[in-house]
Amino acid sequence: MIKNDLSIFEEIESNVRSYVRGFPTVFTKAKNYKMWDADGKEYIDFFSGAGALNYGHNDPKMKEKLVEYIMNDGVTHSLDMATEAKAEFLKKFKEVILKPRNLDYKVMFPGPTGTNTVESALKLARKVTGRTDIISFTNGFHGMTIGSLSVTGNASKRAGAGIPLNNTVTMPFDNFVNEEMDTLDYLERFLEDNGSGVDTPAAMILETVQGEGGINAARFEWLQRVDEICKKWGILLIVDDVQAGVGRTGTFFSFEPAGINPDIVCLSKSIGGYGLPLALTLFKPELDIWNPGEHNGTFRGNNPAFITATESLTYWEDKSFEEGIQEKSKLITEFLHEMVTKYPELEGNVRGRGFMQGIESQIDGLSAKVAEVAFEKGLIMETSGVNDQVFKLFPPLTIDEEGLKRGFNLIEESIKSLIAKKELVAN
Amino acid sequence: MIKNDLSIFEEIESNVRSYVRGFPTVFTKAKNYKMWDADGKEYIDFFSGAGALNYGHNDPKMKEKLVEYIMNDGVTHSLDMATEAKAEFLKKFKEVILKPRNLDYKVMFPGPTGTNTVESALKLARKVTGRTDIISFTNGFHGMTIGSLSVTGNASKRAGAGIPLNNTVTMPFDNFVNEEMDTLDYLERFLEDNGSGVDTPAAMILETVQGEGGINAARFEWLQRVDEICKKWGILLIVDDVQAGVGRTGTFFSFEPAGINPDIVCLSKSIGGYGLPLALTLFKPELDIWNPGEHNGTFRGNNPAFITATESLTYWEDKSFEEGIQEKSKLITEFLHEMVTKYPELEGNVRGRGFMQGIESQIDGLSAKVAEVAFEKGLIMETSGVNDQVFKLFPPLTIDEEGLKRGFNLIEESIKSLIAKKELVAN
Amino acid sequence: MIKNDLSIFEEIESNVRSYVRGFPTVFTKAKNYKMWDADGKEYIDFFSGAGALNYGHNDPKMKEKLVEYIMNDGVTHSLDMATEAKAEFLKKFKEVILKPRNLDYKVMFPGPTGTNTVESALKLARKVTGRTDIISFTNGFHGMTIGSLSVTGNASKRAGAGIPLNNTVTMPFDNFVNEEMDTLDYLERFLEDNGSGVDTPAAMILETVQGEGGINAARFEWLQRVDEICKKWGILLIVDDVQAGVGRTGTFFSFEPAGINPDIVCLSKSIGGYGLPLALTLFKPELDIWNPGEHNGTFRGNNPAFITATESLTYWEDKSFEEGIQEKSKLITEFLHEMVTKYPELEGNVRGRGFMQGIESQIDGLSAKVAEVAFEKGLIMETSGVNDQVFKLFPPLTIDEEGLKRGFNLIEESIKSLIAKKELVAN
Amino acid sequence: MIKNDLSIFEEIESNVRSYVRGFPTVFTKAKNYKMWDADGKEYIDFFSGAGALNYGHNDPKMKEKLVEYIMNDGVTHSLDMATEAKAEFLKKFKEVILKPRNLDYKVMFPGPTGTNTVESALKLARKVTGRTDIISFTNGFHGMTIGSLSVTGNASKRAGAGIPLNNTVTMPFDNFVNEEMDTLDYLERFLEDNGSGVDTPAAMILETVQGEGGINAARFEWLQRVDEICKKWGILLIVDDVQAGVGRTGTFFSFEPAGINPDIVCLSKSIGGYGLPLALTLFKPELDIWNPGEHNGTFRGNNPAFITATESLTYWEDKSFEEGIQEKSKLITEFLHEMVTKYPELEGNVRGRGFMQGIESQIDGLSAKVAEVAFEKGLIMETSGVNDQVFKLFPPLTIDEEGLKRGFNLIEESIKSLIAKKELVAN
Repeated sequence: MIKNDLSIFEEIESNVRSYVRGFPTVFTKAKNYKMWDADGKEYIDFFSGAGALNYGHNDPKMKEKLVEYIMNDGVTHSLDMATEAKAEFLKKFKEVILKPRNLDYKVMFPGPTGTNTVESALKLARKVTGRTDIISFTNGFHGMTIGSLSVTGNASKRAGAGIPLNNTVTMPFDNFVNEEMDTLDYLERFLEDNGSGVDTPAAMILETVQGEGGINAARFEWLQRVDEICKKWGILLIVDDVQAGVGRTGTFFSFEPAGINPDIVCLSKSIGGYGLPLALTLFKPELDIWNPGEHNGTFRGNNPAFITATESLTYWEDKSFEEGIQEKSKLITEFLHEMVTKYPELEGNVRGRGFMQGIESQIDGLSAKVAEVAFEKGLIMETSGVNDQVFKLFPPLTIDEEGLKRGFNLIEESIKSLIAKKELVAN
Repeated sequence: MIKNDLSIFEEIESNVRSYVRGFPTVFTKAKNYKMWDADGKEYIDFFSGAGALNYGHNDPKMKEKLVEYIMNDGVTHSLDMATEAKAEFLKKFKEVILKPRNLDYKVMFPGPTGTNTVESALKLARKVTGRTDIISFTNGFHGMTIGSLSVTGNASKRAGAGIPLNNTVTMPFDNFVNEEMDTLDYLERFLEDNGSGVDTPAAMILETVQGEGGINAARFEWLQRVDEICKKWGILLIVDDVQAGVGRTGTFFSFEPAGINPDIVCLSKSIGGYGLPLALTLFKPELDIWNPGEHNGTFRGNNPAFITATESLTYWEDKSFEEGIQEKSKLITEFLHEMVTKYPELEGNVRGRGFMQGIESQIDGLSAKVAEVAFEKGLIMETSGVNDQVFKLFPPLTIDEEGLKRGFNLIEESIKSLIAKKELVAN
Repeated sequence: MIKNDLSIFEEIESNVRSYVRGFPTVFTKAKNYKMWDADGKEYIDFFSGAGALNYGHNDPKMKEKLVEYIMNDGVTHSLDMATEAKAEFLKKFKEVILKPRNLDYKVMFPGPTGTNTVESALKLARKVTGRTDIISFTNGFHGMTIGSLSVTGNASKRAGAGIPLNNTVTMPFDNFVNEEMDTLDYLERFLEDNGSGVDTPAAMILETVQGEGGINAARFEWLQRVDEICKKWGILLIVDDVQAGVGRTGTFFSFEPAGINPDIVCLSKSIGGYGLPLALTLFKPELDIWNPGEHNGTFRGNNPAFITATESLTYWEDKSFEEGIQEKSKLITEFLHEMVTKYPELEGNVRGRGFMQGIESQIDGLSAKVAEVAFEKGLIMETSGVNDQVFKLFPPLTIDEEGLKRGFNLIEESIKSLIAKKELVAN
Repeated sequence: MIKNDLSIFEEIESNVRSYVRGFPTVFTKAKNYKMWDADGKEYIDFFSGAGALNYGHNDPKMKEKLVEYIMNDGVTHSLDMATEAKAEFLKKFKEVILKPRNLDYKVMFPGPTGTNTVESALKLARKVTGRTDIISFTNGFHGMTIGSLSVTGNASKRAGAGIPLNNTVTMPFDNFVNEEMDTLDYLERFLEDNGSGVDTPAAMILETVQGEGGINAARFEWLQRVDEICKKWGILLIVDDVQAGVGRTGTFFSFEPAGINPDIVCLSKSIGGYGLPLALTLFKPELDIWNPGEHNGTFRGNNPAFITATESLTYWEDKSFEEGIQEKSKLITEFLHEMVTKYPELEGNVRGRGFMQGIESQIDGLSAKVAEVAFEKGLIMETSGVNDQVFKLFPPLTIDEEGLKRGFNLIEESIKSLIAKKELVAN
C-alpha cells in the first residue's frame, strides 16, 4: 500500500468513523506502550484502546500462548459449547480473581462487547425483580445498543437512537450539582416518597469512575451509601466495570477499595488481555434464574480471547502488579497537579484516580487542542466528557517509568506550545 | 485437565449456557468440518458455529496469515483508528465483493457481533427517515439487545427483555398463514390505508432465509415484491444477512438471486472468515448521515479478524467457489428429499435453500431427538424453529463430498434407530 | 348577539375546532330531530351529536325530570359519593338493561367521556392479566387520550400524540384485506405461533360497527369467532360500544344479535340520554380487582346525567322501541340501496347496519360534497372514514317516518344537484 | 327508595368507588356549603367536589339561567359546532378574565374533564416543540388517562397503568428534599449538562399548589425561577390549574400573584360554575398549530355548562369577590395555626394558601381519623397526600363567616375527641 494513505477510509468507510479523525495516520505495528505508523513514526500510547489494552499491545507471553493455540488448531469459535480453553479460563478466573476477593459470582458470557454485557445485566435485573425501571447516573456511559443507550447520559449519543429512550431514570452522580450537595439525599427522597413519580427500580447501574463522562471518580463514601440504599430498597446494584475494571484504577475491580459487593458486574475491554473481544457478566448465584439460551450471542465463546485472558490473569497472582499500578498512579497524579499549578492558564483541575486520570480545563476547546498537539508530537491521548473538556491519561498498566515520563514530557511540551501561541482563550 | 470434565461449567457458568447442554463434551481441536473432544472422539460438524464458520474450522491459509500478523506485532486492537490490516480489508471487500456485484455501499464497523450491526442499522434507518417504527417479520431473529430483540419474533427470547418491546410492527413472512395467502397483500393494505393503525415505518428488516426461525426461505418473487413495496412507500429495506450471508445460500449475499438491492445490509458471523468476531453494516452512500462517533464500540476494529476476513475473500475471486456450493447444495436437497420419502414416519418436509436446509417434522420433539442421537453417533447438528421443529444441516461450505456423505449417513442412521425404537410419536 | 356571527370563534377558539367548519352557523335551539340556527333556519339532524343524541334533542320527559331535579336542588356534582340520583340509575340499569339480557356486569363510572371509559378498560385488562399488549383493529376509533389513541387506527390522529404509541398491535378488521380473506385466520396464526413476535395480549378491543372508521359492520360470525379466539387464548374481549351502543344498531348493546358476551363494555355518548356527559365501564364481576380510587375522575358522578339517563331507560322497558328502530332501519337501508342503484355516478356501496349506515363512494371527495350540499339544503350529516369516503346517516332513533323521508329527500336532492353540476369526478 | 341504603352500590358498583367509603351516606340535596342526606341530616361541605364546586352547590343565579335554557330547548349537546351559549361564554371569558389580566390566550375545548385538558396540553407541547419528554414534579397529580398518569407522581395510581409510563422525567417540587436545597439548582444542572441523560423536554407541567399531592404550595420565587428556566431553554410551561384555578387560591388563576405567564393553562372542575363537566385548554396564540379535529371529544361542547360557566364569571366582574376570598383565607390560616399550637399532639404543620389549606400531621393515620370523626359530626372534608397525611379544608369560596366557623368548630371538636380517646399515636 501507499504508506499512510487514508483515502480508502475516506472513500468507503462511513462518516461514523471517529478516532481516525483525531489520529490521522495508518498504524502498522504495536508493542506495549508504543505504536508505529506506516511511515515508521513512533508514538507513545496514552490511550490503550480506551481501556481495552491495560496490558499494553501484544504482550509477549500472551502472544506466545495465542500463537501456540492457533498453530495447534485449537477450537477458534464455539458459541457456548465447552472447550478446554474456556474451562481453563473459568478455573483461573475463579482461583486468581474471585476466590481471593471472597466474591461468589456466576459467570455469564454475553456477546464479546461492553454493550452486550450491559444489556444482559439490565435484562437479568428486570427479570429477577419483575420491575422495569433502571436508575442510571448523570454522565454515565454504558454502550450504544438501545438498552445500554437508555442508561447513557450523553445527549448526542442518545439522539442517535431515533426513538425515545425509556424505562430509566437518571440520578445525579457524585458531585454533580456542586460540592456541598450530597446527591444521594436527593436520590433517597425520591425512593422514600411514594408520590415522587420515581417507581422503585430494578437496579442502579454506575461506573465508579466515569471514563467517557469526564473522568468523574465517585468518592468511596458515596459508593458505600449507594450500596446501602440499594440494599435498603431491594434494588440490585450493577457496577459497569468495562472501562474502570481489570486494574485500570489500581485494583482488579474498581470497587474493591470502597468495600462494596455489587450484585452484578460488567466486564469487557481488557478482560481478554490482548485486545481480543470478550465480555463477562458476573452476578450473585441467587440471581442466576436465566433460562438456557435466554440471552445469547454468536461470539460469546471467543477461544483465542480465552487463551490470552487466562494468561493475563497471571499478572494478578501476587500483589506486586497491583502495587506497581498504584505507585505509578502517584506519578501521574503528581505530574497532573504540577501541570495545573505551573500553568494556571489551563484553568485546570485534576480528575480521576489510578491510571484513569486527566485534567479538566474550564477553557472551551483547550483539552482537545492539547490532545491534538500531543499527537503531532507523537503521543496518543484522547479527551473525555460531553464537551471534550478533559484530556485523559490512559497509559497501559504495564508501562515503565521511562515511558510515563516520555509521555509526560510530550504533554508538557504540548501545553507550553499552546500557551506560547496564546491559543488558550476560548471564543 | 481431567478430560471431558464439565464440572467447572456446571459450577461457575450461568444457567444461561445452552449449546453445551446439547453437545455435552469438551472440545479441544478443530479442522475444517471436523472437531475433536478431550477424549479424542471425532465429530463431523454440520453446525458451523451457527453460520460463523462457513469456511470451516481453522482454514490453513487464513491461519498462516493470522499467525504471521501476530508474530510481526501487527496492531491487534485499534478501535476505529486506521490500520494497514483494515485498509487491506476495505480494499479487497470493495474489489472482490462490491464492485463485481455493482453494489455501491458505504461500510460501517459496529461492535463485532450480529446484534450490534442490527442495532446500528435500525438507528440509521430511524435517523434517515425521522420515523420510529420498524416492520419486522414473523419468526425473524435479529439479536438479543433491546433494539434487535424488538424486531425478533421468538416469544421466550422477547420475554427476557423484562420490558415491553416497542416501536415495531410484525408482519407475516412468506407463507406464514398458509400457502394460498400472499402475505404481502395484507402488509400492503396496512400501508395504503391511513386508518390501519400501522404508521409508515422507517424500515423493514428481514432475513431472506430465516435461520433461527425454522429455515423459512422466502420466495424470490416475495422478496422482489417487498423491495417494490419499500420503494413505493419510501421505506428502507434492511437485509439481515448475518446468518444467510457470506455464501451460506450459494451466493455471497443471500439476496443476489432475487435481484434486489437492499438499502442496508447487516453482516457478521462468517465475515471474519476464521470465526473471529467482526461485523459490518453496509448502506447506500446517500444514507451515510451519521455524525462521527454517533454509534461506536470498543472492538469495532478487531485487526486479527480483518486479516482473516481479507484472506477469506480470496475464495470469492472467481466463480468456482460459488459453483461448488451450489452443486453441493443439490446433494443436500436430494438427501433430504430422500429421507422424507423413505421415512414417512418423520412426517417431514424439506425447508430452506443452499447450505441452509433442514427437515421440519410435524412430530413434536422429533427433530431434537434426531439431533441428539446424531451427536451420540458423532455428528454436530442443531435444531431450528421456536419449537425446535427443524433439524438443520449447516456444514461448512468447504466440506467435500466425502464429508457430506459421512454426515448424511449419520443422520440416516439416527433416523433409523429412532424409528426402530418407535420413539417417534409425540405424547 | 349579532345573529349567526362566527367571529368570536374565529378570533378566540383554537384552530382545533372542527364541526363548526362543516356546519358554519350558530345554533340556538333544538328539538328531537330538528335544530334551528340564529337566523331561525331549520335543519333536519342526521348527525345526532355523533351518536350522543340517540333519543333526539331535548326529549320532553327527560327534560321534565331534569328541570324538576334542578329546581329541587338535587345534588349536581358528587364525585363518586352516593346520591339518590345515582342509586336510581343503578337500579334501573340493572332491571331494564342487564337482567333481561342475562348480563352480570359490575358498573364503573370513569370520567364522563368515551375516552375515559376506554382508558379504564385498558387499565383493568392489563391489571387483571398482568400483560401489556392490547390488540386493536384497523380503522378502530377509541379516543384521543394517549391510552385510547394507542388503539386508534387513524394516522393523523395518531400523529397528534407527539410520541410513539406503544403496547398495542393492530389486526385486520373484518373484510379489511378483501372479501375472500378471513382476517381471523391471520390473527390466529399470530397467536398460535410462538415465534410470531405478537405476544399474547391482555385484551382485544373492537367496535362491532366502526363509526368513525368508515361505517364498517363486522359480520356476526366474525364477532363470534373473535369471541372464541379470546376465550381460547385467555384474552379479554372489550367491546367499545360508545358509538354503536344504546340502540344505535337496533338493540341496546350492539353485540346482542351476535350472541357474544364481552368481558368489558365501554358506554358513553347516548347513555346519559339527553346529551349530558356520562360514561360507564361494565365488566364481569370476577374482573373487579380494582383498588378503591385506583382510577377516578372529578365528574364521574354527574347527577343531572343520572337523572336523564334513568328516564331514558324507560324507552327500553318493552320491545316496541327496539322494534321501531329495526323497522326504520329497513327504510334507511332501502333508501341507500336505491340511491346507489339510481345514481351509478356515485360509485357507491351501502355500509353499516341499523341507524348507523351510509354510502361509501369510490370517488375521492364526493361524500364530503354530498354532506356539504345537504347542509346548505338544511340537513346536518357528517362523513366517516379516514378519507371522509362515507356519508353517514345518523338520525336520532326517535325520528318518525316523516322526518326520515324529509332527510332522504334532502340527500337525494344533494346527490342530484352534484350530478347535474358534473362535480363528481375526482381530480 | 329505602333511605340511606347503600346496598345497590355495594352490589353493582365496582370496587373502584372511593369517596362513598369515606362518606357513607346517600346524599339527596345540596345548597351552597350544605348537603343533606336521605335521612335529612345536614352536612357542612368543606370538600367542594374536590374543587369542582368553588361557587358552592346550586348557585341560585346559575340555576335560574340553567333552567331557563333547558326550558327554552336551548341546544344541549353540540360537539364543537357553534352555539349561542358557547359564543356568549367565549365573549365573557375574554372580557372578564383574559383582558383584565392582559392574557392573550386561545381557547380550546377538550373533553370536559381535567385529564382531557392535560392530555391536550401535553400533545400540543410535543407537537409544537417536536420533543417527546415532559418534566413533571414530585407529588404532582394530573389525571388518570395514560398521558396524564405519566406525569402524575403517586405510585399506586401509576401502578394502575399496567404498562411502564414513559416519556417523562420527574423533578423535585419546591421544598421536596429539604428546606435548604433549592430544587431548581438541581433541575437546571440537568438541563445545562449535555451528559445528564435528561433530554431537553417539550414542557414542564406543574400545579402551583398541589391539591392531591399534600397541599404543597410552591413559593412565588420558585415559580418565577421555573418560568425563567423554561424561557431560557425554550421549554413550554404548562400550569395545571384544574384544582388550584378559578379562585381557589384567591385569584382567578393561581399563578397571578407570582407574576408569571404560562404558555399553556389547563382548567376544568369549577370552570363550569355549577359542577357540570367542562374543561378548557388555554395557550398562547403562536402555539395554536393544531389541525382541525386533531384532538377532539364528544362532550367538548356541553352547552348547559357554558350557560352556568358564563353566569359564574359575573362573580369576577369586580374585585370584591377576590377580596372576599382573600379575607376569608386569613380566617382559615389563623384557625389552622391555632389548632397546631393548641394541640401539639397533632404534630401538625399548616400547608397551602387561600381556600386550599390543611394540616399535615406527622402521625401516621391521624389526618384520616380527623376527617372520619368530622364526618360523623357533620362535616365533609377529605385528606390529601400519598399517605393521606394532610386533612384539607376546601370550603366553597361562597361560604360566609358563619359557615366557616361552624366548620372550624366541627374540626376542633373532632381533634379534641381524638385526643381524649388517646387515639393519636400511630402504631
